[in-house]
Amino acid sequence: MGTRLADKPETPLLDTVHTPADVRALPRENLRQLADEVRAEMIDAVSVTGGHLGAGLGVVELTVALHAIFDTPHDRIIWDVGHQAYPHKILTGRRDRMRTLRQKDGLSGFTRRAESEYDPFGAGHSSTSISAGLGMAEASKHLDTPRNVIAVIGDGAMSAGMAYEAMNNAGAMDARLIVILNDNDMSIAPPTGALRTYLARLVSGPVYRGTREAAKNIVHKLPPFLHEPARRTEEFARSFFTGGTLFEELGFYYVGPIDGHNLDDLLPILENVRDFGQGPILIHAVTKKGKGYAPAESSADKYHGVSKFNVITGAQAKAPSNAPSYTSVFASSLIQEAEADPRIVAVTAAMPSGTGLDKFAELFPTRIYDVGIAEQHAVTFAAGMASEGARPFCAIYSTFLQRAYDQVIHDVAIQGLPVRFAIDRAGYVGADGPTHAGNYDNAYLGAIPGIVQMAAADEAELRHMVATAAAYDQGPISFRYPRGDGMGVDMPARGEILPIGKGRILRQGSTIALLSYGTRLGEVLAAADKLAALGLNPTIADARFMKPLDEELIAGLAQTHDVLVTTEEGGLGGFGSHVATFLASNGLLDGKLRLRPLMIPDTFVEHASQTDMYAAAGLDRSGIVATALTALGYDQAAMQAALAKV
Amino acid sequence: MGTRLADKPETPLLDTVHTPADVRALPRENLRQLADEVRAEMIDAVSVTGGHLGAGLGVVELTVALHAIFDTPHDRIIWDVGHQAYPHKILTGRRDRMRTLRQKDGLSGFTRRAESEYDPFGAGHSSTSISAGLGMAEASKHLDTPRNVIAVIGDGAMSAGMAYEAMNNAGAMDARLIVILNDNDMSIAPPTGALRTYLARLVSGPVYRGTREAAKNIVHKLPPFLHEPARRTEEFARSFFTGGTLFEELGFYYVGPIDGHNLDDLLPILENVRDFGQGPILIHAVTKKGKGYAPAESSADKYHGVSKFNVITGAQAKAPSNAPSYTSVFASSLIQEAEADPRIVAVTAAMPSGTGLDKFAELFPTRIYDVGIAEQHAVTFAAGMASEGARPFCAIYSTFLQRAYDQVIHDVAIQGLPVRFAIDRAGYVGADGPTHAGNYDNAYLGAIPGIVQMAAADEAELRHMVATAAAYDQGPISFRYPRGDGMGVDMPARGEILPIGKGRILRQGSTIALLSYGTRLGEVLAAADKLAALGLNPTIADARFMKPLDEELIAGLAQTHDVLVTTEEGGLGGFGSHVATFLASNGLLDGKLRLRPLMIPDTFVEHASQTDMYAAAGLDRSGIVATALTALGYDQAAMQAALAKV
Repeated sequence: MGTRLADKPETPLLDTVHTPADVRALPRENLRQLADEVRAEMIDAVSVTGGHLGAGLGVVELTVALHAIFDTPHDRIIWDVGHQAYPHKILTGRRDRMRTLRQKDGLSGFTRRAESEYDPFGAGHSSTSISAGLGMAEASKHLDTPRNVIAVIGDGAMSAGMAYEAMNNAGAMDARLIVILNDNDMSIAPPTGALRTYLARLVSGPVYRGTREAAKNIVHKLPPFLHEPARRTEEFARSFFTGGTLFEELGFYYVGPIDGHNLDDLLPILENVRDFGQGPILIHAVTKKGKGYAPAESSADKYHGVSKFNVITGAQAKAPSNAPSYTSVFASSLIQEAEADPRIVAVTAAMPSGTGLDKFAELFPTRIYDVGIAEQHAVTFAAGMASEGARPFCAIYSTFLQRAYDQVIHDVAIQGLPVRFAIDRAGYVGADGPTHAGNYDNAYLGAIPGIVQMAAADEAELRHMVATAAAYDQGPISFRYPRGDGMGVDMPARGEILPIGKGRILRQGSTIALLSYGTRLGEVLAAADKLAALGLNPTIADARFMKPLDEELIAGLAQTHDVLVTTEEGGLGGFGSHVATFLASNGLLDGKLRLRPLMIPDTFVEHASQTDMYAAAGLDRSGIVATALTALGYDQAAMQAALAKV
Repeated sequence: MGTRLADKPETPLLDTVHTPADVRALPRENLRQLADEVRAEMIDAVSVTGGHLGAGLGVVELTVALHAIFDTPHDRIIWDVGHQAYPHKILTGRRDRMRTLRQKDGLSGFTRRAESEYDPFGAGHSSTSISAGLGMAEASKHLDTPRNVIAVIGDGAMSAGMAYEAMNNAGAMDARLIVILNDNDMSIAPPTGALRTYLARLVSGPVYRGTREAAKNIVHKLPPFLHEPARRTEEFARSFFTGGTLFEELGFYYVGPIDGHNLDDLLPILENVRDFGQGPILIHAVTKKGKGYAPAESSADKYHGVSKFNVITGAQAKAPSNAPSYTSVFASSLIQEAEADPRIVAVTAAMPSGTGLDKFAELFPTRIYDVGIAEQHAVTFAAGMASEGARPFCAIYSTFLQRAYDQVIHDVAIQGLPVRFAIDRAGYVGADGPTHAGNYDNAYLGAIPGIVQMAAADEAELRHMVATAAAYDQGPISFRYPRGDGMGVDMPARGEILPIGKGRILRQGSTIALLSYGTRLGEVLAAADKLAALGLNPTIADARFMKPLDEELIAGLAQTHDVLVTTEEGGLGGFGSHVATFLASNGLLDGKLRLRPLMIPDTFVEHASQTDMYAAAGLDRSGIVATALTALGYDQAAMQAALAKV
């Protein structure tokens, strides 16, 4: 079970809790202690594995209360984003694996249907829980299997349109759905948006302060018989909570705001809602992200996702690195461009820190737009700015840009508007697993006419691509780069403007051509060294652009080599598929050329290290060498013999 | 100028209006007449061309008032969806081309930046206008070019999450943006959602009825000097309009509800807002879709998009057809399946009529979910239902499914949930042009691991695919079919369950293999006849599945033919690209095979007939024959000679 905090209580209740049924069997007065133990256990586990700390600490009491009141797993609890579910994992039979969190073959850092029957709906992206919960509630009605469905969603996630779409629909359907708005005044970054202001007004008002006390008094100070059903009606809750008009106008019954860390508030309210609730209900619970762990409380942004850390000091262990992260190179390069061009503005969807734009924001506070978790709006907002002559950089992770796919097509590309897309976390992302994999943008953006697509081969290339995007006004342009640190190459003082649609040949050889798109170039170079050791002299090229494809370069490679291997950090339908389509359409595959497109395999891959994932995909130096040799005609034995030499 | 309605006034004011500046030069008392003339002109033009009728008729007065008050094109008017912009086109220099609407080389049926400086932001999909407008407003501030930005958005479009994201962001930014909520209680279908109920309450309340009269009285009955600036302050408007709390909570200043057909209300209010407005303002205007044309008023759904029609009787001309539409075959097939399986439910995002699900809804009113314009929610809601064992069919056009791309990946595919996607309007859509082109789903869905993709070759195949999807519980499955009528083939009484991932060979030949995915099969068959006339005997295959690819079938074709031509109604990265990738990866292109993937070209194509579009793409019989012969080695002269014979 690992080391525990020094100040934990003598009797470890948690050792007696194997499933939520054990929580329900505990006397209510013991639940406070259970919550404290869950919190200590969670801090300890995450100190070993790293992961999302603050979100889980904020919902410890809520988790205990939900499992104490509701009949899980028959009743469904959906944790929005999933990363708030660590306490839930501890209470639902996964405590003994908490120290495998986010490790290869270990527990997922999010909820996952395949992992537990207590995870009825997986999530890694935000704002999906109300839609999913409404679907479950309707299915339960339709299939005649009554159950409670509870969606727990943060206030930051409420800025996303899909949460609103679901609320609007639930309110009209009069569905039996419980939404718990976990209002911690903080998603990853301080949330923006009018809704936030509205919630703050509800919480700061005299009503909230007053009723917190009133609720406690009523529930506790009165004799137990007064807790009985007759008084636990809707009227009971209604009588001392007010506000929430906005939610009421959307058809929800509003309860709150309540103190989300106070079990004496949470338990009776959840019980009331369970027994007497009708139609869609929203419980507004106020919590503190990082609750109960001082370093996390005082810096909720920094402790959103953490590395391994020292429990006592809170100091996080970061692996030493000789190269800057791609994210930081993007940020510093954009700052350079913005200093030279006042038309440049930056847009982020609630990820100023993750995208590196927090540094931009410090220098150019009037030129940064954090629109909240709202990727659809972010892209069309940027399109509106571009239509008027501003030069917007829209920095969105590959996986989150999926949320704005229609906007990229309909609002940006069809109109040929010069929005610059900075696509971070391209390719495998490691510990965040399949929900956050940036494997698809090569294909989904590649399908869009007229968009320019670039991928940086190293951090210097990234700097050039930022400069290229800044200068390009003819239409949409994108550049992708992976999670993690650069190659450690020399950095140019300023980015150069690259010629659009032109790749580069790094080494001219013969027989084998290795054509790289993106940061696989490092492995391609290493593979070339191995091949050289076997007496081969491969040509090495960096495509730089996937769209427009450098047809001259690629046709030339095809015509002068026997084998052409492409590499990329993306899947089917992307760079390799475009190259294959171009060559076939132009008859360049009719002859002896052996084309071998290497790409991320067409499967969802569970969390592991990025290095392991690429090796498994055959996208490391060994895989590239093996592909090239096999294409050259080496059989298995000959290849093994050759590989043993290098 | 075409024929006019018999009862139009003698003096055609419209003949004197060439640009909005001419509108502004007219005395206000003439604007009523101008509006009437615009309405008559619009009805007449659409009776000739077909197109979106009801939406434009509902905003005639609003259009006149906006151009009368605001300094267009310097001030920006953004028409959400764009199809309400016909009156706007008439007043902005395009009247003489109104009878080319939606015709090849004619005016677009939507707003379009390339068409006019009065169209600052194009749209075909809904709910983008507030985001775009906010971007424009911020750019105008940032670039120090003050201007008014007005977004006109329907109440149906307000159910989409991106409209909410934009409102939430605008409210927090305190941007100078005017949103006109065009509340016609009707998007395409009767809108659903709690917001709709809320708006109805605002409109039906005593406040609205009373203030309409009050506004008229105040503005008109008082002597003119009382109209002066001192009284046209915010307080003036505020004093007699109340309500709109929901919008106020989102940070907007709410004005309304007002009568959107009454110029005496519209003009002073817009003037007030222009001169004294601060921050984001929402004007709630109530209009009637189809206003002023009885057949459209009494049936707003049916007259949303019309064919050519008789102005006097309202009778629409429909081209005679011998085959049922694909949409109707989908609907009748789903009804068959639903009769046999009570777990089947259907989900639509505000398109019950367009998807054919209106018929399903009549028979199974408790098994249909119209969630409003909310594709993101629709998909995750369906995922929630599927997670509980229901069998949801999510019917969304190819172009609108782009709105839910992340949800298909993150909520459906990663979890392997059996949501059935019925993808109508796949491929070119004709008169609706590039905003509605269904060209991308082959690629964007093809990038997703584990999804099954089918395309129907004809209406009988569609019936089989509905049955196949109904029976498939192993994960997500999709089937696509085009706009328009089927081939006229014999229909099976019931759909058969197709083996997953298996295509079919329709005719075994030699030398040339034609591999079709989707309804290009008709042209492929015709092309085969032409080739037969030249003494060739091509093999013809229907892939049925793009994912999983029938690798055995395709490898067999590759190994036994000299030429392999693929066809599809989709673009780069789709079926042909997958085939090329598969063949290359497996060394099946190393030999003599000449692979020629035919696909929709990688450009946005303006509206024209579907037939013309496919001919231009080389995806008709002639194009297929030319591709096959060229691949066989025919030079240009030989091919022309050959084609002249058949």
